[in-house]
Order: sequence, then structure tokens, then C-alpha cells
Amino acid sequence: MSVLEVSHVSKSFGSKNVLQDVSLTFDENKIYGLLGRNGAGKSTLLNIMTNRIFADTGEVKIDSERINDNDAKLGLIFLMSEVNLYPNGNTLNQIVADTELIYGSFNHQLAERLAKEFDLDLTSKFGKLSTGYNSIFKLILALCVPVKFVLLDEPVLGLDANHREMFYSELIQTYTDNPRTFIISTHLIEEVANLISDVIVLDEGRIMLDQPVEDVLAKTHSVVGPQKDVDAYTKGLNVIGHDNMGTIRVNYVYGDLDDRRLPDTVQLSNFDLQKLFIFLTNQFEGSRHYEN
Amino acid sequence: MSVLEVSHVSKSFGSKNVLQDVSLTFDENKIYGLLGRNGAGKSTLLNIMTNRIFADTGEVKIDSERINDNDAKLGLIFLMSEVNLYPNGNTLNQIVADTELIYGSFNHQLAERLAKEFDLDLTSKFGKLSTGYNSIFKLILALCVPVKFVLLDEPVLGLDANHREMFYSELIQTYTDNPRTFIISTHLIEEVANLISDVIVLDEGRIMLDQPVEDVLAKTHSVVGPQKDVDAYTKGLNVIGHDNMGTIRVNYVYGDLDDRRLPDTVQLSNFDLQKLFIFLTNQFEGSRHYEN
Repeated sequence: MSVLEVSHVSKSFGSKNVLQDVSLTFDENKIYGLLGRNGAGKSTLLNIMTNRIFADTGEVKIDSERINDNDAKLGLIFLMSEVNLYPNGNTLNQIVADTELIYGSFNHQLAERLAKEFDLDLTSKFGKLSTGYNSIFKLILALCVPVKFVLLDEPVLGLDANHREMFYSELIQTYTDNPRTFIISTHLIEEVANLISDVIVLDEGRIMLDQPVEDVLAKTHSVVGPQKDVDAYTKGLNVIGHDNMGTIRVNYVYGDLDDRRLPDTVQLSNFDLQKLFIFLTNQFEGSRHYEN
Repeated sequence: MSVLEVSHVSKSFGSKNVLQDVSLTFDENKIYGLLGRNGAGKSTLLNIMTNRIFADTGEVKIDSERINDNDAKLGLIFLMSEVNLYPNGNTLNQIVADTELIYGSFNHQLAERLAKEFDLDLTSKFGKLSTGYNSIFKLILALCVPVKFVLLDEPVLGLDANHREMFYSELIQTYTDNPRTFIISTHLIEEVANLISDVIVLDEGRIMLDQPVEDVLAKTHSVVGPQKDVDAYTKGLNVIGHDNMGTIRVNYVYGDLDDRRLPDTVQLSNFDLQKLFIFLTNQFEGSRHYEN
């Protein structure tokens, strides 16, 4: 069992505290969603986890060994990021060969199948790829390197709906064939909600939520009905947002309902992960209340 | 009534035919979704419609006047595109002032409200904006210029879920306050499905679909049940895709059901615009059959 641990990591750029005392544990063979607003610190965290930038304080360990200057451990992690690390003049085949050298092996069979499926010519030069195909190529690398921890930062940026669906389906396939840990940072929350087992929400550099998706969704409650009845029912509960649709009121609750009796006029259902995320991280709604 | 007309527009780059005989009519005060795979020709079309690049053949007219070298007509259209037209060293306020000069006026009140809502400092330099805030600033320009046709190319690229929701809600608000025509090109189809009144699908440079969303969705049918019964029921219909879920079969039909009798074992419902788009434009599924 390999475990990736982030312990008390903080990082500032100038006067801005980008990460503040972040601690997380990533278990083997799980798919994590790492969610956060723009600027919340997600990319910084992923870069620290792969030793591309250094934490001011705190540490990152795999199986209790620090990853800094530890090639054996760093060889177990791959980060696909928005930053382009490859020379524009190199062909994709050359980049594959270089990646194989660094990681010791490479799943060429899968890479060729994916290239064909996505209609990507591996003899193209890296610098000639469109935004969408740049993402696709980097995704192929990420799925074909022999690592235990695959970190994907905005993996579907610029991909059309068909390519996004193909990617999600290939991710499930490769995870089934060869279970390992994926950490996916994305703004398209609803599209990954069914893929991920655990959700981490980073908000202004701090961990706001770190739980199984199932547990999180079980705590979401839309309370719908006439405003008076809805407000009476949700009084004292953790109401994180609301909607008005004509005379109908919806209060969104995150947390326990305290077993209170539901009036006949009021209906309960769950709401989705993207909506929860928006309410929890919305600075302008006064919804800074949440439970973990 | 202002009408924007694209007539028989074709365009090649080298040996690639990017647009082939494209004809479209955009009516006043409607919100159009312009959908297409990566490379389908959407951005080229939008650039031709705003005279940034020239068609090889065909023409673009507003109210029967060609837009080429026609400042009066070009002043009625604004394109927000991924390409950055503004000097990196200029402040956002300077770019607003320049835009006001070009278009004759500018809704400063709305711009200031939006800047505050999205937490954007208009004294920042354009070149210092992150991907998300670059989009946000260009969206603010697009919503505040006094034009009849607002063209938005990938308006929410890089925006987090909260900012996307704010943008959609502001778009509805400004459309209600001041009706005009919006043409939105996006890969996030489900997010705009409830905003747009009409959908245009461009596929490999040709118009594949150009209809009211309502009419399009009315022709989508998921046919669910045991495979034998589902296949028998959909025989001869326009089946554009399918799914298997254990022993249950789903055939996706686009078009008329011919009033045939539904067996008790089979259930019908509609499916969504993004799914329809994926089936219609998927080259690898043999689903090149569709009706308009």
C-alpha cells in the first residue's frame, strides 16, 4: 500500500499566503477530485506535491519518505499540468521516448490506441498542437507512465464535449485495468462527480472539505415549499444558500436535519456537488458556514 | 428589426476547407448557441462575421448591406474571442476608454457593477490578468458595448463554477434589460442549453443543424428496455447511438417516431442537447445520419 501524504504545507508568494497549513492523505487506488475557486491554491499544491516548487514549511511524503531529492519516490508521481514542459520543436514520439527514459517504462500499446482514438498524429511537433490537442497529448502521457499517483491539473481544458466524454471513459477503463491513484483538479465539477470517490475542496489556501463524495452528497438537502414553511423547517440548520422561484422557496442545507418533522407542504431532496461547491466557496453570499 | 446574414461563405487555409458554403440568418433579440467539435470552423466563422478575416467566397450582411469596409454596420457587432487584441501594458480602464471611442458609447454603470461583482480591479494591467480574469474582463467589455450583435467565442474558458454561474445569470439580466442578439460558441453545451433559444451545429465546416432548441429536443428519444424489444421498436428509425446497461438497452433516436405502438416493456423519454451533439458529431460511431 502506497500512501501520499501532505503534512502542514504552507506557501507564500510575496505577501500572498497561497497555502496555509494544508494536510492531506491520498490512499492507494482512489480517484480524488481536488476542487477550488480560481486562485484557491490547487496548482501550487500539485506543484509542491511533485517537487516542482518548494513549500515554505511542511513536507510531502510517500510511504513515510520525503519526496525532495528522492528520485525513487518522485518516479511514483506524474503531474499533467497546464504548463508546457516540452520543447516545441520535438515530435510527440520524441517526447514519449524521453518520458520513457525518465520513468523507466511506458505503455506504448495504450498510447497508440489512445492516439488513434483521439485522432492524434504522434509524428506531429509539440508546438504545432491546438489547445485541445495539447491537452489530449499530455493526458495520453499521464495515462501511460508507470506511476502510482497520477495528478491531473485541468485535464479537459479546451476539449470538446466528445473528447471529454472519451477521456472520462478511458480514465475509468485504465483505472479498472490497472488500479492506481488519480487526483483530478477541475472546474467542470458535475462532469467528474460520478468518477471521483473522494472530494477535497481547497478554499483560499485552506482545506475546507476532505471526504468521500457519498458522505458529502448525503448531507445536501434542498428544502422546497412555501417560504414561511421552508424557513420554519430550516431554522437553526446550516442553510448555505437559497433560491426563489415565484412563490416557491428553496433553502439549501448542508449537514444534519436533526430528525425534525417535515410539514406536508415541504419537500426534501438532495442537490449536486457543483451546487454545493458554489455555495460553500461563494464569498459574496455570506455563506462561510460549513461543517467538515 | 436588424438581421445578420451569412450567405454561402466558404474559406480555406492552404488545402484545408474550413468553411464550406455556410448560410445562416441571425434574427434580432435571440440567443443562439453555436456548437461544433474542435476544428469545426466556429472561430473562423465568427472572425469572418466581424470582418477580422475575409471569406474566399460568400458574404456577410447586416440589413442587406455588406459589412466589409462598412463602419456603420461593423459598429453593430462585437466579438469577444480567445485572441487578445489589447496591449498588455494598458490598464483595463484605458482599454474601456478606447473601446468607448470605437463604439461611441459604453455602459459604465454596468461595467463597474460587474467588475465589483467579479472582484476585478479595473486599474490592473491587461497583461497581468490570469486566464480566468482575462475572460472575465473581455466578457465585461462584450456586455457593455452598445451593439445589436454580441458574439462570444468560448466565453467561460478557465472560469470556475461560481464565475460561470454568475456570468450566465448576468447574461440573462442584461438581455432582459436590453434585448439584443447573442451568439455563444462553447464546448460546455449543457450549461447553455437553458439559455439559448436556437442551436446551430457546425460540423467539418458545414451547417449540420440550425433550429430552435425546443424543436430539436422534441425530436430526441431515449428508447429503453430489453434489447430485442428496443431494437424491434426502433427498426427503420434514425438511431444515432446506443448504450447497454447490463441487460437493458438504450437506443437514442433523433427524429420522428412514426406513431408506432410502444410495447409495455419499452419506455420513452427525451435526452439532452450535449448527448445529441456528441452522437451527431461523433466520427467514430458511424452516426453520420441525421435529419435537419
